[in-house]
Amino acid sequence: MKFQAPPGMRDFYPEDMRVQNWLFERWRRASRAFGFEEYEGPIFEYLDLYRLKSGAAIVSELFHFQDRGQREFAIRPEMTPTLARMVAARAGALPRPIKWFSLPRMCRAEKPQRGRLREFFQWNVDILGVEDPLADAEVIAVCVAFLRDAGLTRDDVVVRVSSRPLVAAALAGYGIAAAESEQAFELIDRHDRISADEFTTKWDEAYGNRISAAALTAFLARATLQAALDSARAAGPAGRAAADQLGALWSQLAALGVADWCQFDLRTVRGLAYYTGTVFELHARQGRLRALMGGGRYDDLTGLLGTVRVPGVGFGMGDAPVLELLRALGKLPTPRHTIDAFIIDTDPGLFADVLRLAGVLRAAGLAVDYSYKRVAVGRQFSQAAARGARYAIVVGQEYLDRQELAVKNLATGVQRAVAADALRHDPAGVLGQV
Amino acid sequence: MKFQAPPGMRDFYPEDMRVQNWLFERWRRASRAFGFEEYEGPIFEYLDLYRLKSGAAIVSELFHFQDRGQREFAIRPEMTPTLARMVAARAGALPRPIKWFSLPRMCRAEKPQRGRLREFFQWNVDILGVEDPLADAEVIAVCVAFLRDAGLTRDDVVVRVSSRPLVAAALAGYGIAAAESEQAFELIDRHDRISADEFTTKWDEAYGNRISAAALTAFLARATLQAALDSARAAGPAGRAAADQLGALWSQLAALGVADWCQFDLRTVRGLAYYTGTVFELHARQGRLRALMGGGRYDDLTGLLGTVRVPGVGFGMGDAPVLELLRALGKLPTPRHTIDAFIIDTDPGLFADVLRLAGVLRAAGLAVDYSYKRVAVGRQFSQAAARGARYAIVVGQEYLDRQELAVKNLATGVQRAVAADALRHDPAGVLGQV
Repeated sequence: MKFQAPPGMRDFYPEDMRVQNWLFERWRRASRAFGFEEYEGPIFEYLDLYRLKSGAAIVSELFHFQDRGQREFAIRPEMTPTLARMVAARAGALPRPIKWFSLPRMCRAEKPQRGRLREFFQWNVDILGVEDPLADAEVIAVCVAFLRDAGLTRDDVVVRVSSRPLVAAALAGYGIAAAESEQAFELIDRHDRISADEFTTKWDEAYGNRISAAALTAFLARATLQAALDSARAAGPAGRAAADQLGALWSQLAALGVADWCQFDLRTVRGLAYYTGTVFELHARQGRLRALMGGGRYDDLTGLLGTVRVPGVGFGMGDAPVLELLRALGKLPTPRHTIDAFIIDTDPGLFADVLRLAGVLRAAGLAVDYSYKRVAVGRQFSQAAARGARYAIVVGQEYLDRQELAVKNLATGVQRAVAADALRHDPAGVLGQV
Repeated sequence: MKFQAPPGMRDFYPEDMRVQNWLFERWRRASRAFGFEEYEGPIFEYLDLYRLKSGAAIVSELFHFQDRGQREFAIRPEMTPTLARMVAARAGALPRPIKWFSLPRMCRAEKPQRGRLREFFQWNVDILGVEDPLADAEVIAVCVAFLRDAGLTRDDVVVRVSSRPLVAAALAGYGIAAAESEQAFELIDRHDRISADEFTTKWDEAYGNRISAAALTAFLARATLQAALDSARAAGPAGRAAADQLGALWSQLAALGVADWCQFDLRTVRGLAYYTGTVFELHARQGRLRALMGGGRYDDLTGLLGTVRVPGVGFGMGDAPVLELLRALGKLPTPRHTIDAFIIDTDPGLFADVLRLAGVLRAAGLAVDYSYKRVAVGRQFSQAAARGARYAIVVGQEYLDRQELAVKNLATGVQRAVAADALRHDPAGVLGQV
């Protein structure tokens, strides 16, 4: 009988795991540089949590089940509901700003097909309790800090930034009311993912009597930041507030040194109903249509789950798309497994000494291994190289004669005799000198 | 509407997550010191994988569900089936020894009640492809390395070590055949968790005609390592082989410097059917009956899932019991959130300079934050302390006058003026001198 991983699920063999850890480390490093604190939640939540946030239609996209008590649960498809639930539960007690990040594992019940993952990891970064667009600037800046650290440049990717109230103000100018704008956003969000014909048909059917699909597309693509700010300011108090927010955000992005990674793009509206302000997406400059990261401001979400309204802004970035992009650009490293030292015996009678030395060096914090079979010295050296050892330490006759070990730097080929006692007392120091 | 985490599932707020990360870091550190490589697998597997390994009765202990294609899956309740599947799939290609570890998240459909977790993390360490008891010694030694690093001592915990073939040989001496020993093991494994009366009744019913519960209990408790080895050696070839393995294991544990953490205990047999050799459990010296860690040798498991037999040995240690023990012993640290620097402005007009400096210092790898509200200097200093900042950096009039910043070491109270340029060029070095 032969088993495989379920469709759309990944096995991470050590070589894959090293790449994942390379990514996770960079996500964590950027988060910590910005003062974000890590949190986590359960792998599954009450199904109702997702129904409440996204409507009943979400259920078919989830892996859901009951326990013996007939409670309904679903494996989390995103982190924001968990975050909102956790913040709502302690809204009164948490000091502001709430700057949190997480690297959750999550699942979506995608149809199994090539390239569609059912399980993935996502970097989630959020700031709650801050109305000021400064929080929006911070989450965009932490994303850019990661991109830089991962070796990506402004030629590779761009953060498209927009504002839902700003788009809403523009649509209002064409007679599309606030009550209709949510559905208009959903269609605009899908613009790049459906055919031009399909977009035109659907748009014109719903809103064509006010602005045609062609005119809308041209308007959204053409709008510069300044023009959009100006026309929003002219559209009344809501537009003015939206314009002030976006204008402030842009200055803050500039001060934080990331404005040149960002591009104003009125076509970016995001498809999720809970966004209330700034919205943004990360896109590759070349080749792919789907966003590498998406986020925005969701000032009403926490209020939905608790008794206190806590404004928030954040984003999620999946692991697979960013790894795929790095691979396509030739920028994905292939980290090797390494250890500090591999201990070799010249005679099976010395093997107990190998074990004793391994015990001492490992206790001192070094990564140490040795051959599990008593084989010739040459083969043990080959194993040392295969295990990625930086040093080989040979326990031989000199050890019996005068407690001396031969240490070889496997990168440089330099070999030196060292006193066993000295090595035991300061392993890192002694090895570093060979 | 108010939501909570599902019963038996944990939310990890930042203060909880810091403790988890403290534990994960030590698990990883011990694993790496011994040359283990990290791997991971899917959060759910085909339900049949668990049915195959543990029988149909396991299903009621799992969270299981179907996808739209009627495939049956279950959230993993343990890592060993995934490990065996992954190794079996590449058995021919993986270089030996296979030394792997993982920190998987997993779920069991426990009845929700106080202290019973439905979701937990587990440190899994395994060596495959090695028949020599050296592999058994290595996995026990890596566990002890973690225990030491976590601040535990031999007065706190003990690793109870035994051998299933050795117990089987002893039982055979009383006329309990190999075919019966699996069920006898299950009952012996439950010995500490059921009442003495229940054990006596059940044992005597099944095996009392050969050895009474009282005699068995006395024999198992009394048996010293040497006595058990001697009587196994006298019991024929299988007993002799088992005795040789366990004798070798004990010498290797001694050479690796961990034998004094281990105790031979013939009562340790483990309840899982797939163990074929050495078995071991970690127990607190005081107070609790359930094992903190359990493992052993499973030489036939991989063969069940693939075409090649790959011998293996390993263990799993849950996060909750070890954290609970550390807490009970007063040895659990409460790590604080810290950042390197908190930047303060003496006037709102200088805030853009705060942002610019934050951008530069963060890009240099420092963890930096600042107040999101323009408040008085004193309040910004309070925020700096609350955020766990090591240094406060004040941007004030001196910055405008001569590009100078005031840097205060918040631990020592020492304050010094530093040139902004010097700080930008070597942030860690300049801060380190204050």
